[in-house]
Amino acid sequence: MARLRIYLAGPDVFLPDAAAFAEAKCRLCDQYDFVGVSPFENGVDVATLPRHVAALQISAANEAMIRGCDLLIANLTPFRGPSADVGTVYEMGFARALGMPVLAYTNVAGNLLDRTRQALGTEIAERASGQFVDSFGMAIEDFDCVDNLMLVGPVEGSGAAIVVNPAPRDRRFTDLAGFEQCLRLAARNRDADASWAGTNRRKPQPS
Amino acid sequence: MARLRIYLAGPDVFLPDAAAFAEAKCRLCDQYDFVGVSPFENGVDVATLPRHVAALQISAANEAMIRGCDLLIANLTPFRGPSADVGTVYEMGFARALGMPVLAYTNVAGNLLDRTRQALGTEIAERASGQFVDSFGMAIEDFDCVDNLMLVGPVEGSGAAIVVNPAPRDRRFTDLAGFEQCLRLAARNRDADASWAGTNRRKPQPS
Repeated sequence: MARLRIYLAGPDVFLPDAAAFAEAKCRLCDQYDFVGVSPFENGVDVATLPRHVAALQISAANEAMIRGCDLLIANLTPFRGPSADVGTVYEMGFARALGMPVLAYTNVAGNLLDRTRQALGTEIAERASGQFVDSFGMAIEDFDCVDNLMLVGPVEGSGAAIVVNPAPRDRRFTDLAGFEQCLRLAARNRDADASWAGTNRRKPQPS
Repeated sequence: MARLRIYLAGPDVFLPDAAAFAEAKCRLCDQYDFVGVSPFENGVDVATLPRHVAALQISAANEAMIRGCDLLIANLTPFRGPSADVGTVYEMGFARALGMPVLAYTNVAGNLLDRTRQALGTEIAERASGQFVDSFGMAIEDFDCVDNLMLVGPVEGSGAAIVVNPAPRDRRFTDLAGFEQCLRLAARNRDADASWAGTNRRKPQPS
């Protein structure tokens, strides 16, 4: 049987050494008998295309790469705010709707409420009910989850909790222990149940 | 023919008057001969369930509601950072993978680069190449887009640009002019092409 293909979603594409980092993730995938597919390898000629045209081509290329994969591992490390990178999150939702298992890790500890309180500081108020709200009066989600509940449901529905692997700041976006833990979980699920992943590429695809 | 159903994705669910706001959006949908479907109406008994259980039930309920819709309109107004709410973004990706048109609006002007520079301030450095990077050395996306390119591609692929409708701060999360502009775009596309939306509910659904 063909090796399962894993889409490597994450803000990793913004790293200064993004190509080498994608290669490192792919080598780890190989060690667990998976094929890693990185959005960094989208084939779009960013250097010569007008920026907006390049953006649309990268978006389309990444969606096509996800459709060609069997599962997705998302790096949900908070990115420039209390929550994960939105590009990564879009791809998670995309994969999940196709029926793909979605695993995820974060290199920062704590739940969303704590991180949001830390990020917003004195802008936050506490209602008599105990509900925390921001300066717009908007509720701060308090479901004791690593991030927004829409990111937690699909991962737990795929057979594992989000892997939390606190790393020091200088390795926040490069530490791969949480990623490797996701690979171990994926390998265990694959080996226990042949139908766990791999259904996406056998299904007729929405246009 | 049955009226098309629109999933109303957005951080609106965190508003202090979220129920009334969802009703206001649904009334506008009705005016354009659509049925609005709000994630606020998920039917989960948040008051009595353990928080994590409630989170998983809401996630599953929202995904099921999206599957029962024909298109999605996302409120991409930047939420507690330079980018949109991650829950909204997850739902956008989910809908798009099912083949649903996705329209979107934001009530804040400017592109992602400008907002990120404003949010991170002095933490940002400029490389000799002109590339801006954050304090982790990670590139700040510069594709002249309203938000991350993964959010722009699906909207433009649905037949419209993201509607930008700058609103004053006190109406940032409640102004509905951009939402109504999305409804007008959706009505125009629906009236011009009967196959524009509505294919999702006729397709076999991934499990």
